[in-house]
Amino acid sequence: MVYDKKKHLKNVAERARMIMERENIEAIVASSCENFYYLSGHPSTFMYTLRMSEVALAVMFRDPSRSTVIIMNEFEAAGISADLPGCELRTYPTWVDVDDPFGLRGARYEGKRPDKHQIHEMFGLLSEVLAEHGITSGKVAVELSSMRCPAVNALREAVPGLELTEAGLVLTELRARKTPWEIDQLRQSCAFAEIGIAETIKGIRTGSSAAEIADAFRLALLTHADGAPSRFHMISVGGNFAPAHIFDTRPGEPGDLIKFDVGVDVAGYGSDIARTFVLGSPSDTVKRIYGALRAGHDRLLELIEPGQPMKRAFDEAMHVIRSSGLPNYNRGHLGHSAGLSLAAEEAPFLSPSEEGVFHPGMVICLETPYYGYGIGAIMIEDMVLVTDNGCERLNKLSRDLISL
Amino acid sequence: MVYDKKKHLKNVAERARMIMERENIEAIVASSCENFYYLSGHPSTFMYTLRMSEVALAVMFRDPSRSTVIIMNEFEAAGISADLPGCELRTYPTWVDVDDPFGLRGARYEGKRPDKHQIHEMFGLLSEVLAEHGITSGKVAVELSSMRCPAVNALREAVPGLELTEAGLVLTELRARKTPWEIDQLRQSCAFAEIGIAETIKGIRTGSSAAEIADAFRLALLTHADGAPSRFHMISVGGNFAPAHIFDTRPGEPGDLIKFDVGVDVAGYGSDIARTFVLGSPSDTVKRIYGALRAGHDRLLELIEPGQPMKRAFDEAMHVIRSSGLPNYNRGHLGHSAGLSLAAEEAPFLSPSEEGVFHPGMVICLETPYYGYGIGAIMIEDMVLVTDNGCERLNKLSRDLISL
Repeated sequence: MVYDKKKHLKNVAERARMIMERENIEAIVASSCENFYYLSGHPSTFMYTLRMSEVALAVMFRDPSRSTVIIMNEFEAAGISADLPGCELRTYPTWVDVDDPFGLRGARYEGKRPDKHQIHEMFGLLSEVLAEHGITSGKVAVELSSMRCPAVNALREAVPGLELTEAGLVLTELRARKTPWEIDQLRQSCAFAEIGIAETIKGIRTGSSAAEIADAFRLALLTHADGAPSRFHMISVGGNFAPAHIFDTRPGEPGDLIKFDVGVDVAGYGSDIARTFVLGSPSDTVKRIYGALRAGHDRLLELIEPGQPMKRAFDEAMHVIRSSGLPNYNRGHLGHSAGLSLAAEEAPFLSPSEEGVFHPGMVICLETPYYGYGIGAIMIEDMVLVTDNGCERLNKLSRDLISL
Repeated sequence: MVYDKKKHLKNVAERARMIMERENIEAIVASSCENFYYLSGHPSTFMYTLRMSEVALAVMFRDPSRSTVIIMNEFEAAGISADLPGCELRTYPTWVDVDDPFGLRGARYEGKRPDKHQIHEMFGLLSEVLAEHGITSGKVAVELSSMRCPAVNALREAVPGLELTEAGLVLTELRARKTPWEIDQLRQSCAFAEIGIAETIKGIRTGSSAAEIADAFRLALLTHADGAPSRFHMISVGGNFAPAHIFDTRPGEPGDLIKFDVGVDVAGYGSDIARTFVLGSPSDTVKRIYGALRAGHDRLLELIEPGQPMKRAFDEAMHVIRSSGLPNYNRGHLGHSAGLSLAAEEAPFLSPSEEGVFHPGMVICLETPYYGYGIGAIMIEDMVLVTDNGCERLNKLSRDLISL
């Protein structure tokens, strides 16, 4: 079944309003890449591709009769689809010239072209929009902790009468429960990541380097997975387990471990799965480590069901790994929520400090990674959807250590 | 000639120390993705790929007898090449387990695994490192305006005795003049971008969509440009000129403009060039606009030489464009420095507010972009190297409007 993005945005808005009621918040203002997209339905290229910060705002109101307002520069805003549901657009001028030679925009067209990013104009529009909606005092949730200092200062200046509270926790709570449309995207991104791995390993042999394998993975996505872009592909060969921005060109040798920890983007949603292979036969040490991690991972899969504490899954799986041949295994977390975050991992975490429980609709990555000097990387990572009575694995590749 | 990265890092350090002398700064601390790489020579995957902020620091001292100190989490630091010149490494533990089953690290191995990012540990190490070098008072330049607020607060807490000044201007000044090694990377990234465009246009015909062309461009880089990754490929077909994170699948129609504005990554350095094509014959309006932009662009190329004000290049080229058939052309800038910035554009700009002049060793993008409702995008963008007596174009593709 194909779910609808409009229904998704409506569902997000409804749940956001329940939280706003509970927390007595008048509006949520998203200014980060992922959260701007989450509340508005529109991904900003300036944010996603050019990595700019605080260049657009999505303002969602507690009052359900009010549309979400998108505040964006005129150049990017020209790409917002006319049928973006339940949104209203306000634009500010930027350094890019946009012309209207045929008068298509009528009186809406302005030719101002500043030579700097217009953060004051953007927050000025926010102040206007909030005032139009009668919000000149009370609590408004903004992404304080992810904004750069000059932006926070400009924001405080623009809306001096408001109590600005941190939006991070509210947005984490919202994003942790996926809508059916989001689950569809994540299911597809898992499938693409697995196609990428399955195609890539066909060409791996002794002598293959991490650099060659990384290129092969990108090519496999282009040619076999509908061109879906890789979000990250942390691929290691042999002992050099550290994540690399420029990949290692050392040829793989017999016995080398080959680890894929990869994520593929589908409509802004990203998978995060991992599998490990070995060139030829694994050493006894590797077999022992893999066995312990696998036992812990198997146990993790049994511990995911609604109402179960996330901390308990961490504690029990750590116990299994440590008592299965890796007594010194250690780790800050054994899993995390996934979805929009470009950092792959997002809260909540399966960690000792997590107080929450699993809920239906969560999509969780379960991982038992091992990195060892003189060994390399060993990982098994699955994505699961928490269902009404357990969980469903979204990826299907064998969890065995496979020889290539 | 192939220049050496070690010499590059030495050259950067020497120039940085001259600025530190002039500004009476004891040390520069880089915390952003690009600047951490610039000062340390090591690109952080956590920063580049996973887009994390404030996860590593590079500390460069005014005292030339002191090595640059890299402060980084233990997991990423394991990938720092042993021969990274003139650097000293300090690590802090992170949530990722790194094991030492064979005792290869001896007493240097610690098993602590916190479940959060350890920003306080990182800035604690900074405080220690500065104190070891006798810096407990005086001016230290840090990237205040690009750090998030919680990081600035944690930093101020860790080094209460220091006067923290903004590092942004110092780093902009440094980065604007390229070393021979950096020019080599940018020359290669221009060449790859042009190969990408030249290969891609071979397959474009009526019916091609922006989505198909974008996939073809990525494939061309993988198969014809040594797998160099695209940094951005803002490709538009027809009237929809706005930058798109998810590309338009509408088939191109006769008369549609096809615009490539693309950059390719080579060792962390990115080109930024643009060309425009047309499906069939251009309309008279498009011919008129293209002619005006081309005249302005030709004039820009004549205005780049050492000692010439950047503002003058802007003013004169704007005059040419406006008097060549586009009287209302407007724009915040007509060019910018390029190199490390993931946002493609970096200071200084060819803009009305720029006070600086061109210097040999600068790499500058010259652009005369036009976006029009009902028209689409028209761009010519070249990269040039400022030489001792003029400039050298780093890209070679025809600057004509070419029919496909």
